[in-house]
Amino acid sequence: MPAQTPRFSRRAGRIKISATKLMPMLAAEVGGCVSLGQGVPSFATPGFVADAVCDALRRDPAAGKYSLQPGLPALRRAVAGLFAREKGLTADPDSEILISVGAMEALLAAMLVLVDEGDEVIVPAPYYPSHVEQVLLSGGRPVFAPLRPDFSLDPGAVARAVTEKTRAVIITSPHNPTGAVFAEADLRAVAEIAVAHDLTVICDDTYDSLSYDAPATSLAMFPELRERMVAVGSFSKRFALTGWRVGYAFAPRPIMDQMLKVHDCAAICAPMPGQIAALAALTGPQDVFAGFAAALSARRDLACRRLDALSGHLSYVRPAGAFYIMARYRGDAPPMDMAVRLIREAHVITIPGDAFGPGGEQSLRLSFGADEAELTEAFDRLDRFFGK
Amino acid sequence: MPAQTPRFSRRAGRIKISATKLMPMLAAEVGGCVSLGQGVPSFATPGFVADAVCDALRRDPAAGKYSLQPGLPALRRAVAGLFAREKGLTADPDSEILISVGAMEALLAAMLVLVDEGDEVIVPAPYYPSHVEQVLLSGGRPVFAPLRPDFSLDPGAVARAVTEKTRAVIITSPHNPTGAVFAEADLRAVAEIAVAHDLTVICDDTYDSLSYDAPATSLAMFPELRERMVAVGSFSKRFALTGWRVGYAFAPRPIMDQMLKVHDCAAICAPMPGQIAALAALTGPQDVFAGFAAALSARRDLACRRLDALSGHLSYVRPAGAFYIMARYRGDAPPMDMAVRLIREAHVITIPGDAFGPGGEQSLRLSFGADEAELTEAFDRLDRFFGK
Ligand SMILES: Cc1ncc(COP(=O)(O)O)c(C=O)c1O
Ligand SMILES: Cc1ncc(COP(=O)(O)O)c(C=O)c1O
Repeated sequence: MPAQTPRFSRRAGRIKISATKLMPMLAAEVGGCVSLGQGVPSFATPGFVADAVCDALRRDPAAGKYSLQPGLPALRRAVAGLFAREKGLTADPDSEILISVGAMEALLAAMLVLVDEGDEVIVPAPYYPSHVEQVLLSGGRPVFAPLRPDFSLDPGAVARAVTEKTRAVIITSPHNPTGAVFAEADLRAVAEIAVAHDLTVICDDTYDSLSYDAPATSLAMFPELRERMVAVGSFSKRFALTGWRVGYAFAPRPIMDQMLKVHDCAAICAPMPGQIAALAALTGPQDVFAGFAAALSARRDLACRRLDALSGHLSYVRPAGAFYIMARYRGDAPPMDMAVRLIREAHVITIPGDAFGPGGEQSLRLSFGADEAELTEAFDRLDRFFGK
Repeated sequence: MPAQTPRFSRRAGRIKISATKLMPMLAAEVGGCVSLGQGVPSFATPGFVADAVCDALRRDPAAGKYSLQPGLPALRRAVAGLFAREKGLTADPDSEILISVGAMEALLAAMLVLVDEGDEVIVPAPYYPSHVEQVLLSGGRPVFAPLRPDFSLDPGAVARAVTEKTRAVIITSPHNPTGAVFAEADLRAVAEIAVAHDLTVICDDTYDSLSYDAPATSLAMFPELRERMVAVGSFSKRFALTGWRVGYAFAPRPIMDQMLKVHDCAAICAPMPGQIAALAALTGPQDVFAGFAAALSARRDLACRRLDALSGHLSYVRPAGAFYIMARYRGDAPPMDMAVRLIREAHVITIPGDAFGPGGEQSLRLSFGADEAELTEAFDRLDRFFGK
């Protein structure tokens, strides 16, 4: 029989590649672009973290080998300490903490064990696209709960989204793509909804330390959610270790036992060099990481100043955390057309807002993770593009 | 509503944790064990590979950041070169090669895009447990095709396993858990079955370079399979880089396009330090890796010699590749009881053979990846246990 067009699983047909990955590919074809697109802080791996890894590689043959499947015991203990210190959450490092391949793999493992074909998962929108892809990959149906126009979390919208089929709700604050930091009262209201309707909460705290005006509240701080929660964190953004691929999750033992089975046949274990780097970052001097947060806060001010000067063309809500701004343009050009024009004509990479779902119309996601020189160059180009 | 026992997805209920991970945990409780259990060669990361990573971390801020989603272009080119050189397979590094989080993540991505609820996947048995977990995780049904008593591949058994619902067949040679290297004629017969029944072949070449008597034939060498194949490889065993979590896959573009979507929301990208290590290993001097293979070949001889001396208690088929032996004991004790007794009474870790499915009854999987001293100590303990 001649090779036919291969048939793929339904789940494969449902998911798509994220625009955050597509735009840089397009830009690479055009050439000479500066980026407001990527979700990566500009900082290099701190010297003391790299040194810890290189020392371990010289001293310890185990540094290059599989770790225990749930992760290095010392790192699991350090992560349990972090949860206790920052969220008041007491976790057993031996049975309730997983070290994962970035936050991403932990989120996928959670989704695959919680969500069955036909289950619904509530996702505030606009949303982080991978959350939705993971729901779809698990056979679930994402149900969007619109954020308010100022991008605050709307518990009423979450309550209205609940049905018989709702299995879980995903909350991430500070929020990608809006930079919103959700208010404690709104989070508390969502916690009550979760308890009332027996939902599991997937709390994605990837940006937890990047809240510039006041510390962010996390659903992981609410003891009443402890037995119905997967709380995911990352070393990627806070410690600028994106490429090392290390994240972590807390889940109560019954959920964690299920997640470990998926982890085992998805990754075996998180990369050991990354685990060593993460342990060094978490237990070493913290001033360099406080410096990262301070620099990002200053870049937020720079980006907002530059956007204010473009107010005839772009409007936005000042972000309180993460390093993203949803900027709304005038007119009704589709966001992809606008983003492509910006790449072609202004040589600036942005992400079309509708890649983040409802609420992202006529918008572009701008990242201020790049360094000051690149940000300044990007906004100079936007000024010229908009003819300011 | 009070927290109920959480409800999990059907897929979570179907899969289990691998015995390869459980036995070391049990042994940790007992203490003082030596291991014939783990699938890890004893070698540390070679100095020149570690140096390449440490240099990159000092020189290049990108070394700690996300790579392009499909992997570093230079590494994809090097992997395409490897396929061309060793398997005569020409692959476009830009659209047909993925750098993954170990072979494991590539295998999972392949399974998730190929297999739908109710589809069948043929798996020669005994099998590598994660292959089966991945089929189950994808909602598929593994259908076992028994190897012959000498652990050779039986194309007749594969042919008999084909039904209307068969979507794919997984072949790994050199084989885990038997150490078998499948004969070219048997592989060719399986290739014909795949073509005749329009099946996709998942070719897991994790151990491809560890064939001690003659080079192993791979299904990736058969041009007629090119458009219906996912060929997966690993840096873990050949280059002793298990902990770095880097593997790779070839798939023709239509399949790869689907796999990249899963990769995106499962891992984002393979770890950058691991990708740098893999590139250094692949493009650097190869004598150290040839030395690894030579050492493993010598350990095979040692293990076989020691097993021959225990022939009153254990029988086995001499392995031609990988670093595993299925050793059959007398009597009808369940393999788990036997393995637990060996941990408790002999302080030797082995893996119960039935963890690898049909064909693993009354057997224990022994690994000869450990160094000579550990192997010798383990067999001394087995000698004492069996009262030799
Ligand atoms: C909201 C959110 N969650 C998770 C992730 C994944 O991060 P990691 O690098 O830890 O996998 C990201 C990355 O951009 C993110 O924005
Ligand atoms: C047959 C087989 N395939 C795949 C793997 C996964 O290897 P890795 O993910 O480390 O590349 C293993 C590991 O033991 C294996 O034995």
